[in-house]
Amino acid sequence: MEIPVIRNVLEANDKMAAQLRDIFATRGILALNLISSPGAGKTSLLERTLTDLAPEFRMAVIEGDLQTDNDARRVAASGAQAVQINTDGGCHLDGNLVMQALNAIDMDGLDILFIENVGNLVCPVEFDCGEDAKVALLSVTEGDDKPEKYPLLFNLAKAMVLNKVDLLPYVDFDMARAKQFSRMANADLEIFDLSCRSGEGLQAWYDWLRAQRAAKKRG
Amino acid sequence: MEIPVIRNVLEANDKMAAQLRDIFATRGILALNLISSPGAGKTSLLERTLTDLAPEFRMAVIEGDLQTDNDARRVAASGAQAVQINTDGGCHLDGNLVMQALNAIDMDGLDILFIENVGNLVCPVEFDCGEDAKVALLSVTEGDDKPEKYPLLFNLAKAMVLNKVDLLPYVDFDMARAKQFSRMANADLEIFDLSCRSGEGLQAWYDWLRAQRAAKKRG
Repeated sequence: MEIPVIRNVLEANDKMAAQLRDIFATRGILALNLISSPGAGKTSLLERTLTDLAPEFRMAVIEGDLQTDNDARRVAASGAQAVQINTDGGCHLDGNLVMQALNAIDMDGLDILFIENVGNLVCPVEFDCGEDAKVALLSVTEGDDKPEKYPLLFNLAKAMVLNKVDLLPYVDFDMARAKQFSRMANADLEIFDLSCRSGEGLQAWYDWLRAQRAAKKRG
Repeated sequence: MEIPVIRNVLEANDKMAAQLRDIFATRGILALNLISSPGAGKTSLLERTLTDLAPEFRMAVIEGDLQTDNDARRVAASGAQAVQINTDGGCHLDGNLVMQALNAIDMDGLDILFIENVGNLVCPVEFDCGEDAKVALLSVTEGDDKPEKYPLLFNLAKAMVLNKVDLLPYVDFDMARAKQFSRMANADLEIFDLSCRSGEGLQAWYDWLRAQRAAKKRG
């Protein structure tokens, strides 16, 4: 069991995140930190994205999980570099863990680094991993009340993927309510209605990635 | 921001949990701690249970959320006592918060106390709230890999509700795989295939509650 003093931990993490941000800036790598509940579809979104954008970008993934390397194996099947971090019970990734994982990644020519955080709507939000943007995922099976109940993530995220919209006919989910509360937390939030199963919304998500990547490259 | 030293926090929590357990034992109250991802259906299960078992039992609910009193208002509509705890960013309930909430509950003649924890598969698991049993909820939209990836909850829970089975035709979820990994974590886990929408599995869940309550009353 670790004995962290939380404030010092966050201060130390911010220093490590600044180092990571310098590395990403120097190399022009777009770094995105994906945060959601367990099972919202982060890995499925990455599988589609890594496959469909493989002709355009060199991409890598850092997978955070308490246990198993299932997700790293899933995304590696796309041909992208994938590094698994097992937190061994820890509820979030942090700058230090991402820095360690970077040692296992060939960053030459890398365009986009995806950091798939541990499935958790709360704890990963406070730990900066040096990313350019946090991306929140919310699936329509989780309930339209989640942006109201967990506002910090939606406040700090630059984009939200509203996932599994193919299941809308079978669940009680008010898209307008979910978006209203998300935008109350963050008026500038980009929102993508999306389904990895049907493919709906993927093109808009890819266009956003292209724009973020181009902006990062310009510096 | 709190500055906890985690090991001391857990030791202090265990003492508070022991006090809670004494209170529940003296009064013969069955206390259940419901833990799941956000949106797995804890509140919906409570709405159904509180309504359907109202003729048999006196029940109360402690609702844990980061923000809002939505869930307390939802379950109070059943006529049961409901107390909302807002953790203001905290990722789990603990013994101290439950003790405070108990002050607002009339425990005379109370049969069952449900503690609906903050939606999070990780952090609530380590904080004993004096409950007789933890009940894990997993919805079939979250993926069959979750018991393998978050084994501690399934190891420590006495029962698991496999929720939203009405959505099985529309998702890729291998029930056998989910149960296999749950039982690898805990061979004695009681598993209820259930849908709050269709009502499937509710009777088995109610029978289990009746048996747990009867065992508690016998002491």
